[in-house]
Amino acid sequence: MEKVREILREGRRVAKEDPRRVVHSFKVGLVLALVSSFYYYQPLYDSFGVNAMWAVMTVVVVFEFSVGATLGKGLNRVAATLFAGALGIGAHHLASFSGTTGEPILLAIFVFIQAALSTFVRFFPRVKARYDYSLLIFILTFALISVSGFREEQVLMLTHKRISTVIIGGLSCVLISIFVCPVWAGQDLHFLIASNIEELSFFLLDFGDKYCETVEDSDTKEVDKRKKDFGNYNSVLNSKSNEESLANFAKWEPGHGRFRFRHPWKQYLAIGGLIRQCAYRIDALNSYLNAEIQVSIGIKKKLEEPLRRMSSELGKAMKEMSISLKKMIKPSSSDLHLQNAQSTCKALTNLLKSGILKEVDPLELISLLTAISLLIDIINLTQKILESLHELASASRFKNKIEPPKPNAKSIVCGRSTKCHDDHVVTIVQDDGYNDVTSKNDNRSNEVSSHEKHEDCVHEKHEDGDTHVHSSCDSYGQTSIRVVVGCIDIRIP
Amino acid sequence: MEKVREILREGRRVAKEDPRRVVHSFKVGLVLALVSSFYYYQPLYDSFGVNAMWAVMTVVVVFEFSVGATLGKGLNRVAATLFAGALGIGAHHLASFSGTTGEPILLAIFVFIQAALSTFVRFFPRVKARYDYSLLIFILTFALISVSGFREEQVLMLTHKRISTVIIGGLSCVLISIFVCPVWAGQDLHFLIASNIEELSFFLLDFGDKYCETVEDSDTKEVDKRKKDFGNYNSVLNSKSNEESLANFAKWEPGHGRFRFRHPWKQYLAIGGLIRQCAYRIDALNSYLNAEIQVSIGIKKKLEEPLRRMSSELGKAMKEMSISLKKMIKPSSSDLHLQNAQSTCKALTNLLKSGILKEVDPLELISLLTAISLLIDIINLTQKILESLHELASASRFKNKIEPPKPNAKSIVCGRSTKCHDDHVVTIVQDDGYNDVTSKNDNRSNEVSSHEKHEDCVHEKHEDGDTHVHSSCDSYGQTSIRVVVGCIDIRIP
Repeated sequence: MEKVREILREGRRVAKEDPRRVVHSFKVGLVLALVSSFYYYQPLYDSFGVNAMWAVMTVVVVFEFSVGATLGKGLNRVAATLFAGALGIGAHHLASFSGTTGEPILLAIFVFIQAALSTFVRFFPRVKARYDYSLLIFILTFALISVSGFREEQVLMLTHKRISTVIIGGLSCVLISIFVCPVWAGQDLHFLIASNIEELSFFLLDFGDKYCETVEDSDTKEVDKRKKDFGNYNSVLNSKSNEESLANFAKWEPGHGRFRFRHPWKQYLAIGGLIRQCAYRIDALNSYLNAEIQVSIGIKKKLEEPLRRMSSELGKAMKEMSISLKKMIKPSSSDLHLQNAQSTCKALTNLLKSGILKEVDPLELISLLTAISLLIDIINLTQKILESLHELASASRFKNKIEPPKPNAKSIVCGRSTKCHDDHVVTIVQDDGYNDVTSKNDNRSNEVSSHEKHEDCVHEKHEDGDTHVHSSCDSYGQTSIRVVVGCIDIRIP
Repeated sequence: MEKVREILREGRRVAKEDPRRVVHSFKVGLVLALVSSFYYYQPLYDSFGVNAMWAVMTVVVVFEFSVGATLGKGLNRVAATLFAGALGIGAHHLASFSGTTGEPILLAIFVFIQAALSTFVRFFPRVKARYDYSLLIFILTFALISVSGFREEQVLMLTHKRISTVIIGGLSCVLISIFVCPVWAGQDLHFLIASNIEELSFFLLDFGDKYCETVEDSDTKEVDKRKKDFGNYNSVLNSKSNEESLANFAKWEPGHGRFRFRHPWKQYLAIGGLIRQCAYRIDALNSYLNAEIQVSIGIKKKLEEPLRRMSSELGKAMKEMSISLKKMIKPSSSDLHLQNAQSTCKALTNLLKSGILKEVDPLELISLLTAISLLIDIINLTQKILESLHELASASRFKNKIEPPKPNAKSIVCGRSTKCHDDHVVTIVQDDGYNDVTSKNDNRSNEVSSHEKHEDCVHEKHEDGDTHVHSSCDSYGQTSIRVVVGCIDIRIP
């Protein structure tokens, strides 16, 4: 009983994790029940007979979770069956010239040569990656057609029936998978990459705080517990094979949603690779949170501000990239956050040059400087990810976040403590706040809807769709105000 | 023509990379030609008829490259066919009670429920990992048996024939794969892990030299070129899925060579994971070879000796682990090399504490200390790998390198520059020199067969099989002499 209950719990978990799995199971059951009507329905059985089982087999083997995988397998199977069928008939004809004793020998030789050759070709890396299944079906069909031709009188008829049942089976899989609650591999890949970036952003947003959190700040055990809970990025480390198979499937998919037929799926793999490199650095960084050698509080306090800021700016840049990828809009404020991280990094190295490290114990110094070096690595990788994302955005024509400017748009500069006395609605960019920007020119009130102040950086956004003000001031005397009016981007250092 | 020639070249490359591939292709061709004799040979055809095609299908689908994969698939297929066959007959009987109109409807419902349920169960992670193929065959066979039962009068006969042909097909695959030039997944896994350790050892053996090699030492371009050629460890980074599938296959394999049936394959995965972590560090280390910010020559010269020594001792430890794993003997001198690396590491930190870093530019300091920190990480990981290897060695009863001691064995202590005036043959441990140790007591001469002096460390080994002297002296005043007499290990600090 306990075992059964456990299985049921597991089942509920699997279904909850991705409810499309339940739908997929129903779809497979449905298609299989439909295809088996070839046996029950007399007119159909009259024309196909026992060959109807090829339809059943095709459905079981071809129907995969995503449209791309089903289409790929279905097309591969049909193509391989057609080609092998033709070759098989040829072999049968050739063998039949050699009399009753020669025929089986010749057929066996043909089967041997074909199977050995095809099996060898399956080892070619490029073939293995894309056409492994086709070759399997090719070997299978050739053997079956050429060999059973020895017994059946009408090989052509047999081949014809086999091929048409395979096509019927494959076609019903493809149609059901496309038109009944489709699962698109491309879309899955898109969201997988976006959520991987998000996982990293979660780590980076918190890292500064966790790293600088000293034992005094709170109860030791609680800190330890929180530090251990901190490894959600682990799934990112091992997502390579998943990404590759999704990209492989996505190539077969027709346009869907906002993805065209030849969407640049390869670019996702490039971004995924960079994300994984970043995750390796983060894994190393995480080990410094739980390392035996802890950097002493004195030096941590001195470097606390730039460290927190670098990591949180990186986190924000990642977060914004993830959101803009999810919503398929061009990333805009990521560049700003990245620039902030870079300038903080410069300030940090200046601080280090000031001789702050003179008194630090070498082992602590190693631990501290390695963490800093990893953060610098992550900045460089984030830069690369952002560049790849921009490439993807232009290749797949992501929308601009900002609407084209209106003729009477006003540019407003809001300083840190300046209120905007103006007839526009001013709201603060929330991390998830990319509500589609709509013109609200009729709503010209003085109302300031919300204000959120980040530690040392204020972001503001005009909701009327034409004017954006990003004002950021860091603690190194560098204040930059950025005004975005429509597509024009002005920076005031 | 060019295309054909290219394919031929690729074929030659694939065959050269692993000649067993050619043999495998021949084996598949052979079995398929054999099994197709079911059609040609009248007595066999009389008893199985068209069902002979199930044997052909089973061969094509089940025959995999390694014995483990073939056995796993074959057993899964036979078990699933048996189980689904029994259930299918049950469903057919149940449905036949409900009359001619009710029967097809009831059968379709059965097929729907079974297919939907099994498809859902395939999403369970544990099932997906091990029994995915069984469930596929289960769905297939159940549908075919229960549905074709509707037309065939003798369902029992049909099922019986189907199952026996599947068993015959599966059995011939398994027998041929075991007895004709077998390819053991377990053995492949064993050597994959050993060669992965070796790849890392190559990097580490050279790293110290490459890192400390200054531009003055030789032509810049040549250094750059050599540095770039230096990434053979890349295959290690991505061998996870390969290792996992090999371990999965290896579980099915019977004892072969020096591997028992329940060889601890899981331990290989643990070692593989540690190796990969080590490879990530090495990847990071490699990036410092080509980094823009190069540590200045002055400071490099000061740290050159410990850096070179740490990395080369690590490399030697790795090399010895790889060799002892390959030969399935207990690793012995790895511990010594690792201890050397650890003591050098201590000396290095003492050197750093001496204030040597005061004048170094912070950016250079970051680069330098990160490299050192990565090396320390690698030392810790090597320690873990060595521990896992010791566990593996005791779990799978690796042989001792050293023969049991003889009653009249003498212990000899050889210092750095001391010659052994003694009636035993003294040879130096070569990196690859684990020649089986044989008693050569009759060969009591004064001959010293070879002497190889490592930079600052001398290893000596008595070839008469009872006395080993390891003498190592590092440049920090720590000299340790280790005398191994049979199984007794004496260390003289």
